[in-house]
Amino acid sequence: MKNDNIEDAAELAPRDIAARIARELAPDIVDVLNTQDAEEATEVMAALPRDKAVEVLDQPGLEHGPAIIEGLPRDVAAAILALMSLDRVVDIFHEIEEPVRQELTALLPPEARQSVKELLAYPEDSAGAIMTTEFVSVPSTWSIADVLHHIRMVERSRETVYAVYVMDPARNVLVQAVSLRRLVAGDPHASVLTAAPQRKPVSVRAAAPRSEAVRLISKYDLLAVPVVDGRGHILGIVTVDDVIDAMVERQTEEVQRFGGMEALDEPYTEISFWRMVQKRAGWLCALFFSEMLTASAMQGYENELAKAVVLTLFIPLIMSSGGNSGSQATSLLIRAIALQQVRLKDWWRVALRELPAGLVLGGILGVIGIVRIGTWQVMGIYDYGEHWRLLALTVGLALVGVVTFGSVAGSLLPFVLKRAGFDPAAASAPFVATLVDVTGLVIYFSVAALILRGTLL
Amino acid sequence: MKNDNIEDAAELAPRDIAARIARELAPDIVDVLNTQDAEEATEVMAALPRDKAVEVLDQPGLEHGPAIIEGLPRDVAAAILALMSLDRVVDIFHEIEEPVRQELTALLPPEARQSVKELLAYPEDSAGAIMTTEFVSVPSTWSIADVLHHIRMVERSRETVYAVYVMDPARNVLVQAVSLRRLVAGDPHASVLTAAPQRKPVSVRAAAPRSEAVRLISKYDLLAVPVVDGRGHILGIVTVDDVIDAMVERQTEEVQRFGGMEALDEPYTEISFWRMVQKRAGWLCALFFSEMLTASAMQGYENELAKAVVLTLFIPLIMSSGGNSGSQATSLLIRAIALQQVRLKDWWRVALRELPAGLVLGGILGVIGIVRIGTWQVMGIYDYGEHWRLLALTVGLALVGVVTFGSVAGSLLPFVLKRAGFDPAAASAPFVATLVDVTGLVIYFSVAALILRGTLL
Repeated sequence: MKNDNIEDAAELAPRDIAARIARELAPDIVDVLNTQDAEEATEVMAALPRDKAVEVLDQPGLEHGPAIIEGLPRDVAAAILALMSLDRVVDIFHEIEEPVRQELTALLPPEARQSVKELLAYPEDSAGAIMTTEFVSVPSTWSIADVLHHIRMVERSRETVYAVYVMDPARNVLVQAVSLRRLVAGDPHASVLTAAPQRKPVSVRAAAPRSEAVRLISKYDLLAVPVVDGRGHILGIVTVDDVIDAMVERQTEEVQRFGGMEALDEPYTEISFWRMVQKRAGWLCALFFSEMLTASAMQGYENELAKAVVLTLFIPLIMSSGGNSGSQATSLLIRAIALQQVRLKDWWRVALRELPAGLVLGGILGVIGIVRIGTWQVMGIYDYGEHWRLLALTVGLALVGVVTFGSVAGSLLPFVLKRAGFDPAAASAPFVATLVDVTGLVIYFSVAALILRGTLL
Repeated sequence: MKNDNIEDAAELAPRDIAARIARELAPDIVDVLNTQDAEEATEVMAALPRDKAVEVLDQPGLEHGPAIIEGLPRDVAAAILALMSLDRVVDIFHEIEEPVRQELTALLPPEARQSVKELLAYPEDSAGAIMTTEFVSVPSTWSIADVLHHIRMVERSRETVYAVYVMDPARNVLVQAVSLRRLVAGDPHASVLTAAPQRKPVSVRAAAPRSEAVRLISKYDLLAVPVVDGRGHILGIVTVDDVIDAMVERQTEEVQRFGGMEALDEPYTEISFWRMVQKRAGWLCALFFSEMLTASAMQGYENELAKAVVLTLFIPLIMSSGGNSGSQATSLLIRAIALQQVRLKDWWRVALRELPAGLVLGGILGVIGIVRIGTWQVMGIYDYGEHWRLLALTVGLALVGVVTFGSVAGSLLPFVLKRAGFDPAAASAPFVATLVDVTGLVIYFSVAALILRGTLL
């Protein structure tokens, strides 16, 4: 897809850039506009042919969408908004502040105005917020030929025509979803219902989280899922490309939260320096405050530390092993919960599995730790003192305890967060690390007190 | 989708289970079979109506697919395999060992046998490996009516008919991709090319990584992308539901690798205890061996530690702050690289951004650390000795150094891994933690040596 027209665009006047890129595919035009600032992008957009501008603004990858709509002359904006898909208009309006949002809403054609107002009312993470109201629905009394004729008429104005929703004409509720491929293959004179499968259609409630729409489309291999209210009326549909966009966004958020920060709402390359620092500083400070407990814990062991300095040598090793095992368990359970492989009430099954897993993993590390200390001592690389055997035993047993605690705590924290109504992916991993660091110190010094009392301590 | 037929299935005989669930949707039958072991699932499958068994085996979510195909009587397996979609057959055959695989391949109809052999030859992570050869292609000389007639004939045997590939009849190369919606809306007597867009179709090479197919489908909102060889011949297509499955799988792998372990190839609830321990032990040991360097580093500072035990109190706090800032930077860059927002050659831009970001973030934590020590000292909560001001300064400056190093190292490691041909998501985070732990100790003790020389040290 490399293209010289696109590569050189940066140095030209907006009108020339528009002329150069006007024949590219909309997603490729988006790539060019995303390298420009909002003002330039707006000028290029104004110079693009109207239908191309609509296509480009319909792309969810466009970064300055809201700024462009705000920046265009109102009459141009009105003409473009009237042709855009409604779910994108809603996406963009979500990011525009009042009173400008109201002013722009007034520019929409009357029927779209009402839909957009309703769509804007859904919470941002709900299925309702990513649905479009531009779908094809037909009464169940129509023949296949009627439906195909209707599709030919409305095809241009609908986000997808591959799923057609068949309604009970009396009660106006969804009775079936029919695919265009079955319609094309069917007998034109037969009822539209002959092309339907034998099962009730899959649907999602408007207030459900959008992850539920993602799950249904992914599980049942759908091209769209209808969004319904409590009485079975269709409010809109969520299409497979909305789902893919939602998945990409969600994946980025999940990785960033797992990395211990608030998810950025803009790409790394676009976000301003101070905004990025702000997003990172919050969590970093929160974790720093929790980690201060390690200093307090250590202060509690100052006598032991003064008597046996050799104990301090292994503090980082023991703490990090606990953190690593906790991080493994957390990452496993975050995904298992997200994919609905385990349910909340299964937490004790998980605990019963992580307990022996932690003991085995801790045992392996413990043996390696003991061998390490023994080898250094015997080969004369370092002298851990006359009680080196007891020290090795202390480190080994502490590793078993810390890794076991890390595995169990790391596996259960996602359940606790989910239960408390939080996203399990949100900073589980760094939380576990902090929890395990503090507890790891306590475990280490308790084991030391037990084994080394009367010798080193 | 809750259903009592499904919930109670566990206690019944295979034949009764099959009778109960036969009318459910295939993905829901998969949910039931996944709660059973391979042997039971095979018996239920054998008792299902033939067409339902085909639909169920076509679901990528089915966990015992390979075991079921191996376990069924050969004549039943042959009948089912003949009707399954080829990309799923290939998926399943990938997990069956020779010589059974060859034996099963021989059961396929001759034309499918050849396709499966070719598909099996593509590397598992390539676009070729997830493509299907069941697509619709037509010569560019046909009219729209010809194409629609052809679709009616072949609809049942194609994975998708929503994208139709138009070939140059002389050279047999791809000239256009046409959507079914444009065909349905078009003039039946016009050439198929009148329904085509004005641009060359998007395509992907068979040897390209499957992430490239995912990227193209997601960027251009396609329902399928054609897979071509070097001369433009279509080998197959990758459909949007293959892409969604690939994304879910990839997301799980990414989170697990980020958590510092080898990605599990089975769900958490399905994998055997020892196999899970094995997948976790490898990385845990590797990280443990690297973390041993912290013990060696500490041994190098044994004199300082003996003289100023108070320094040890802040070791966990300083190390974890470096680790957290590194983990933030890594998670940001892993996603930015995956989404192609930054390229390999941009590494120095990133470094130039992370350096000031690290200084600011480290400065914030440093000030908090200094205030913490000062408060404890002045309020009499803990006595850090007469040189507490210098100690506070040491901790503050060390935090600036460690957090800055963590941010820069954490942001650059994904580039290094990518450059070296590894997946940047693979254990970047725990690697950074280890690197930052060891370096953090060195930074801390160097700052201490500088500031505390002549007083505490």
